[in-house]
Amino acid sequence: MSQAPATSGNRLIGTVAMRWHGASLELLDQRLLPDQEIWLRLDMVVRGAPAIGISAAYGVALAARGASSDGWRQQVERAIDVLAESRPTAVNLFWALTQMREKLAGCNTQEGATETLAAAAVAIHQDDLAANLAMADHALAHMKADQPMSVLTHCNTGALATGGYGTALGVIRRLHEKNLLVNAFADETRPWLQGSRLTAWELSRDGIPVTLNADSAAAAILASGNVRWVIVGADRITANGDIANKIGTYSLAVLARYHGVGFMVVAPASTVDMALSSGQDIPIEERDGTELRQVRNVPMAPASVPVFNPVFDVTPANLIDVIVTERGVVSRPNSAAMRALFG
Amino acid sequence: MSQAPATSGNRLIGTVAMRWHGASLELLDQRLLPDQEIWLRLDMVVRGAPAIGISAAYGVALAARGASSDGWRQQVERAIDVLAESRPTAVNLFWALTQMREKLAGCNTQEGATETLAAAAVAIHQDDLAANLAMADHALAHMKADQPMSVLTHCNTGALATGGYGTALGVIRRLHEKNLLVNAFADETRPWLQGSRLTAWELSRDGIPVTLNADSAAAAILASGNVRWVIVGADRITANGDIANKIGTYSLAVLARYHGVGFMVVAPASTVDMALSSGQDIPIEERDGTELRQVRNVPMAPASVPVFNPVFDVTPANLIDVIVTERGVVSRPNSAAMRALFG
Repeated sequence: MSQAPATSGNRLIGTVAMRWHGASLELLDQRLLPDQEIWLRLDMVVRGAPAIGISAAYGVALAARGASSDGWRQQVERAIDVLAESRPTAVNLFWALTQMREKLAGCNTQEGATETLAAAAVAIHQDDLAANLAMADHALAHMKADQPMSVLTHCNTGALATGGYGTALGVIRRLHEKNLLVNAFADETRPWLQGSRLTAWELSRDGIPVTLNADSAAAAILASGNVRWVIVGADRITANGDIANKIGTYSLAVLARYHGVGFMVVAPASTVDMALSSGQDIPIEERDGTELRQVRNVPMAPASVPVFNPVFDVTPANLIDVIVTERGVVSRPNSAAMRALFG
Repeated sequence: MSQAPATSGNRLIGTVAMRWHGASLELLDQRLLPDQEIWLRLDMVVRGAPAIGISAAYGVALAARGASSDGWRQQVERAIDVLAESRPTAVNLFWALTQMREKLAGCNTQEGATETLAAAAVAIHQDDLAANLAMADHALAHMKADQPMSVLTHCNTGALATGGYGTALGVIRRLHEKNLLVNAFADETRPWLQGSRLTAWELSRDGIPVTLNADSAAAAILASGNVRWVIVGADRITANGDIANKIGTYSLAVLARYHGVGFMVVAPASTVDMALSSGQDIPIEERDGTELRQVRNVPMAPASVPVFNPVFDVTPANLIDVIVTERGVVSRPNSAAMRALFG
């Protein structure tokens, strides 16, 4: 059976979020970072659009393996349906499940399906890692980076959120490898604190210079003139070049434009959803207000206060300088430019 | 001896942050809100520029009362010097201490100073409350508010941060009293969470509609078109109309301008420092990174990760639509307009 790329031990890959052992999937429980490194068997503890897609693919493979011989195909199809319900905003999930559904259709036996779906999941994982490496190449070529610079990022888009290496954080990783990174400012990224808990942990662990800041301090950092690029990921990209990403991304896009700082979106082509004409059509997940009222079960606000807690926001194409995918870059995205690469 | 206004029980005053009992000052420990309401005898547990000035004035009065008869004047002068070192950014502190120093100079006996300084502190407190009420009047007249609206605020500028009623939150309080408030969005205000812990608590307690949001969600809220004004306080206002206020204020000013939403700064005249020509000259307090690495002693980031943690940022006058003080408003502030009111 194929070996997943994240277990190759290649330093370039960075801290991995998932391990595939041929018959079981282990996920790093990111809810407990940075205090504890606990690996769990399959569970939706994973986050990050590409990682959600990859782990869902592994989940389908496991469903085939664990199904009872009577009605195994229906059981796998049901697993796909259940996985498709788990998160509404990231499109990579649906893309990965579509791949798996097509593979399943071509299988005649449970044994064959178990083998085929596992290989397909590993291929999705391997392709994602290869895509990340290609995106880093495209991004650096676009930036024409020749002097060390500082950048600012939001949320976590690194090896923990992808098949390895990272999307936006992969670009930052590559800048560091090329001695072109002075410092990566990391927004702490409320309410889940992916910046504090994950990005700061991942970059520190890999020896990449990082400075943590409150989300609301990003404007002052951009005003200082020390940052050349804001680099973020995306959970969905629509046909006109709008993107949905972690809440706070839109704020950074407005601030970057105001301060004349470049705004770069880095995401695999599987994030592009040409079926949606604009960001207005992207379903935005809203989560329970408890995430703002409490931090790790410690109350921070009156228990009954109303909360507005959207997980994502939409950044319109006109605020984006470049979208980077493994297929190449879309500079100043609009419908025509998007169609040229993804049509 | 005079009675401080916050003990009058007037509903208009709102939740009080301090109580003066003629011989001792009690402060509400805002570090423990909203879990516990603990009143402490004098200590710098208080926050909010006007409240810092008022409590420092009470502190001087207490120093006169508690001084030994031998060298009492030097002891009070030393108390003033120590209080002046406590926080660098808010100018109200220095303003209040200057008032107290002048009163002290006119006193000949410790008994006389004890009485005079206590009366002066109460007067500063009473004047601050009166100023807040006047600011609310000026703000509503400027807004020409005739239809209920939603507003967004940052940090805590209410009765907890002032002598009572509030500056920016006083305006929100007045909108509510006039049935002109649909909802007050409150930024949670990292890292100290004054929005979650204090503003949400204070407004909920007083029956004023409030919705809590992550700081980084403010952009999406402004983009929704549901907010007419962003209303904030200030810790210092310079001769050209620049302001320093809680980190994140500058971000809101850029976002408000981008979305065509009004940006209002509400602060007493004691916040104006005509000796500083621009915001570049304001000393900005930076605090320990632990505030971002931990939330209430719970680790949220690697213990050693570098942190950029400025407490305040500077918003240039050109992003401010109106500065409201008890003396009146400065619309589209600049040096000439500021000189006309404060020169």
